[in-house]
Amino acid sequence: MAEERFQVFRRVEFGETDMAGIVHFANFFYYMESAETEFLRSLGYSVAWKQDSEKLGFPRVSVSCDYLHPAYFENLLEVQVGIEKIGKKSIRYRFRFYHEAVLIAEGRITSVCCRAKLNQPIESIEIPAEMRAKLEPYLIQENESQK
Amino acid sequence: MAEERFQVFRRVEFGETDMAGIVHFANFFYYMESAETEFLRSLGYSVAWKQDSEKLGFPRVSVSCDYLHPAYFENLLEVQVGIEKIGKKSIRYRFRFYHEAVLIAEGRITSVCCRAKLNQPIESIEIPAEMRAKLEPYLIQENESQK
Amino acid sequence: MAEERFQVFRRVEFGETDMAGIVHFANFFYYMESAETEFLRSLGYSVAWKQDSEKLGFPRVSVSCDYLHPAYFENLLEVQVGIEKIGKKSIRYRFRFYHEAVLIAEGRITSVCCRAKLNQPIESIEIPAEMRAKLEPYLIQENESQK
Amino acid sequence: MAEERFQVFRRVEFGETDMAGIVHFANFFYYMESAETEFLRSLGYSVAWKQDSEKLGFPRVSVSCDYLHPAYFENLLEVQVGIEKIGKKSIRYRFRFYHEAVLIAEGRITSVCCRAKLNQPIESIEIPAEMRAKLEPYLIQENESQK
Repeated sequence: MAEERFQVFRRVEFGETDMAGIVHFANFFYYMESAETEFLRSLGYSVAWKQDSEKLGFPRVSVSCDYLHPAYFENLLEVQVGIEKIGKKSIRYRFRFYHEAVLIAEGRITSVCCRAKLNQPIESIEIPAEMRAKLEPYLIQENESQK
Repeated sequence: MAEERFQVFRRVEFGETDMAGIVHFANFFYYMESAETEFLRSLGYSVAWKQDSEKLGFPRVSVSCDYLHPAYFENLLEVQVGIEKIGKKSIRYRFRFYHEAVLIAEGRITSVCCRAKLNQPIESIEIPAEMRAKLEPYLIQENESQK
Repeated sequence: MAEERFQVFRRVEFGETDMAGIVHFANFFYYMESAETEFLRSLGYSVAWKQDSEKLGFPRVSVSCDYLHPAYFENLLEVQVGIEKIGKKSIRYRFRFYHEAVLIAEGRITSVCCRAKLNQPIESIEIPAEMRAKLEPYLIQENESQK
Repeated sequence: MAEERFQVFRRVEFGETDMAGIVHFANFFYYMESAETEFLRSLGYSVAWKQDSEKLGFPRVSVSCDYLHPAYFENLLEVQVGIEKIGKKSIRYRFRFYHEAVLIAEGRITSVCCRAKLNQPIESIEIPAEMRAKLEPYLIQENESQK
């Protein structure tokens, strides 16, 4: 089965750089969040939405990023979004950032499917079957998964 | 009547600089927000709090900042907080940023007193009399108000 | 003479909201900076670039924003960029933010044309004639300037 | 040998929250950076400084964070800084975030000691012996290292 691909493009803003002249490392998490949101939107979901009287969403429980090369102001970054694992309640995304075909950073976000009913505490829930079916085509295949 | 003073100190973080090597201009608004919050906290309030079943807060309706000199990483900034005007429902703050006694920036925030009852839209309300009494000592005196 | 128009679109990210459930006010300055950069890029310039051995750029000396209506996560904002004034050395931009044809915020940035030669302090310079000629079509006409 | 401790306190700002009502996950990296900077400053260093005609600094090559409990506006967070590993050229920090004695997040930053001579590309260098000696007392002891 062919693996589905999702990618977004992002141009580095002036305010995202730091005095070292490069993108400040923390901004890659905003890039990842934006890509995650756009990915979910492409499937008809979001990172936070209302359904009936409930709020559903995907709070993050674990994130990481490795930086291989710096990114500079006005660089157009290509962000490739894939899924490394779909658990019962969680999704682990992998994001690869490229500039002119060079891998400059690789990050991960693990998000947990959660529900908040009105005036009740938030609770983690199983990823709905329909959503799972839409996510599975983006699972990264074994032989492609290695760096 | 002597004018009350309120000031906070803030050290510039690495991630607040940009590729020009100075504090990115937008960060001064976070500095102002932080100083506003600390000022209100010193009076027993906040920029957002709950009271009975209501939410009260001070959303901003107008902000500005003039930049006179750059601020650099690890500079310790002194932020002087004063009030230029207390309206029926709004407060206009003035923030002056000093580094080693040099005025480097001056900003303003106008916040409006608002209330949100459960499941109802937010509405502006009059500043409670008790709060107004606590704010008035921080009104900037005429002859001091000019730059 | 017909006035030239420049506009960009921007979708509100999750991380740009605050606990009030709306876009945090300071983020509008990042939106403005992004729009300013894209506007200059459309003319062949930037907010910071190198030319021969010099660095040129447009540091901001004064900014402001008025907030009329809140913006929410995933709102697609239309940002209209115009120029209110071209001084000898500075440009005052006006940015209007619309969501579904409703004006939600209006901001201004005044940027000064500056040059930094290697190992010398930054100095303001006159806006080059060629650049001025490209900016002038974006001057806001009188009768349109009023809110 | 007793292990040295370093800790800083940080109050959550309004602008650091998101529409979920909690601190946005990316802000923990700014908290970590701030704590790292303050830690290095306590030893007489920084994350970026000049020495003779060289620039020295500690760019980050790998970062991560696990989120256990949410943090809220105005929470006073205690950040405990320790070192998990001192390599030839790199330092791996561990940051633990507590609110009222509850561990709410744990993050890591790996920074590499780098030097940039005037007009030359940045290069990684060995951590100077004098600095290493100052860092070693903060190495986390084995039996304390486990969560």
